[in-house]
Amino acid sequence: MNKKKVVIALGGNALGKDVEEQKEAVANTAEVIADLAEQGLDIIITHGNGPQVGMIQDAMDNLVCLHKNYKQTPLPTCVAMSQGYIGIDLQNAIKYELHKRNMDKKVSTILSQVEVDPQDEAFENPTKPIGRFLTKEEADENEAHGVRCMEDSGRGYRVVVASPMPKKIKELETIKTLVNAGHIVITCGGGGIPVVNNNGKLMGVNAVIDKDNASSLLASQLGADYLVILTAVEKVAINFGKENQEWLSDLTVEQAKEYIKQDQFAKGSMLPKIEAAIRFAESGEGRYTLITLLEKAAAGIRNETGTIIHS
Amino acid sequence: MNKKKVVIALGGNALGKDVEEQKEAVANTAEVIADLAEQGLDIIITHGNGPQVGMIQDAMDNLVCLHKNYKQTPLPTCVAMSQGYIGIDLQNAIKYELHKRNMDKKVSTILSQVEVDPQDEAFENPTKPIGRFLTKEEADENEAHGVRCMEDSGRGYRVVVASPMPKKIKELETIKTLVNAGHIVITCGGGGIPVVNNNGKLMGVNAVIDKDNASSLLASQLGADYLVILTAVEKVAINFGKENQEWLSDLTVEQAKEYIKQDQFAKGSMLPKIEAAIRFAESGEGRYTLITLLEKAAAGIRNETGTIIHS
Repeated sequence: MNKKKVVIALGGNALGKDVEEQKEAVANTAEVIADLAEQGLDIIITHGNGPQVGMIQDAMDNLVCLHKNYKQTPLPTCVAMSQGYIGIDLQNAIKYELHKRNMDKKVSTILSQVEVDPQDEAFENPTKPIGRFLTKEEADENEAHGVRCMEDSGRGYRVVVASPMPKKIKELETIKTLVNAGHIVITCGGGGIPVVNNNGKLMGVNAVIDKDNASSLLASQLGADYLVILTAVEKVAINFGKENQEWLSDLTVEQAKEYIKQDQFAKGSMLPKIEAAIRFAESGEGRYTLITLLEKAAAGIRNETGTIIHS
Repeated sequence: MNKKKVVIALGGNALGKDVEEQKEAVANTAEVIADLAEQGLDIIITHGNGPQVGMIQDAMDNLVCLHKNYKQTPLPTCVAMSQGYIGIDLQNAIKYELHKRNMDKKVSTILSQVEVDPQDEAFENPTKPIGRFLTKEEADENEAHGVRCMEDSGRGYRVVVASPMPKKIKELETIKTLVNAGHIVITCGGGGIPVVNNNGKLMGVNAVIDKDNASSLLASQLGADYLVILTAVEKVAINFGKENQEWLSDLTVEQAKEYIKQDQFAKGSMLPKIEAAIRFAESGEGRYTLITLLEKAAAGIRNETGTIIHS
């Protein structure tokens, strides 16, 4: 029998704002991943990079101001850098946790690109916040230089970039080869480096792909059994924050679509996760998306908690 | 019959000082790699990162000065970032060149760590220049903050870091798996992320590993047939720059060691390349190191030019 395959999408916000915080965060993550590995699952890990890629672009942009001999580093290159920045700590934390449990599984991180459509309307309308929170003054200064900023959930201003839909996981064969060889694979960091295909030439584009969308596509192209989207709540709710709030354990694609029509899920927060969940559940028979907290992932896979979305 | 395996070490200086220059440089590199792929070789590519990792560390350090909410990014994390920064352009250029030749070979870039000995005396005596050239004033300011700088070949001052000897390629199994699946693999970027093994926990250390040393170790651990060290001259010379200068086509390990005794090779330049070449040639029977120009690599493998070092 084939082993069950699970794609796990970690949030970039949960990874901390510097290497020190990141090392602590990935130590927790590693325990959960090792639990799942002990359950005998094949594991593919994706992660967000919003705060990290924003920091890296900030750093690279400032360098151009400080030293005339450096030129601007494009955003897709910064995404590639963020895959190294995050991947290395994540890989080592998982490897160490496996080592402590006497499990000799390999863990590999691969540089990953995701193809998008150059005509994607997201390029006209940037909505994905990256980097640190800015003051109103900093945001205005960015806007004056043509860098789009938006107010983010009452917490301050942030730079926003285009978030086009992922069309193709470019390194799919690499991922498959390593998973089949028994590796835990870290891939599609930050949703993948966004590229367009110009007659066989891949060219980076100024965007960041939503990691849940990329993970959903990856999971369906890999023929995974589960997609696990980790978030800040144990279960999805309807009437969230209201008196008649109701936690959901099990949700069919039809029910999920109905709740979307009723505006039950917050834009830029739970809505894109539910949409990514639906796309995976619809991509093939017996495919389940689990939405839950990091620390509930293993229990969720055992169907003990979290919200499952399925056809 | 097994296909011949070649490990090719590209210089970081040849990759340009920004993304624009890098894209041009890797387009040339890609043609050579595709030529070698057409010769039916299995190809593993390593690369330096001196200028790039210095730039990245510079950027990340400046960010800490500009925004108090960011903390220092350690050098090994910057090396990881440089693997993304360089790898992505290198991978795409090779893939595009293969595409133009109707070759359907995969190209994969993996995040790579190399274990070093925490007792390596290099940590006491930093010698590896990274980053841009500094003025005397900038170098003095760095020194005042505990960052070692050195005059570099009459071209100005540069930050120097420890360059310990590589002991173990941590992702060897990943590389083997992908090479066996027919991929061209980009790995050990910047000599690999330098780590020490603390009872199974890999921890980054403040260093940059010489990419020729890392490549030599990788080539021997992979059981490669050729190690190709690319440099700025077509052949190795003795009495370099003198009237009795002599270009060498073929050099046994014994001859090479004799010339080293005679101080024939410049420290920090040709000497470490010859030493890396010797180590690979000595690691097993029928192992050849070729030292030549990028554009002569394919001819060199056919034994038409360059300098071959063998036992």
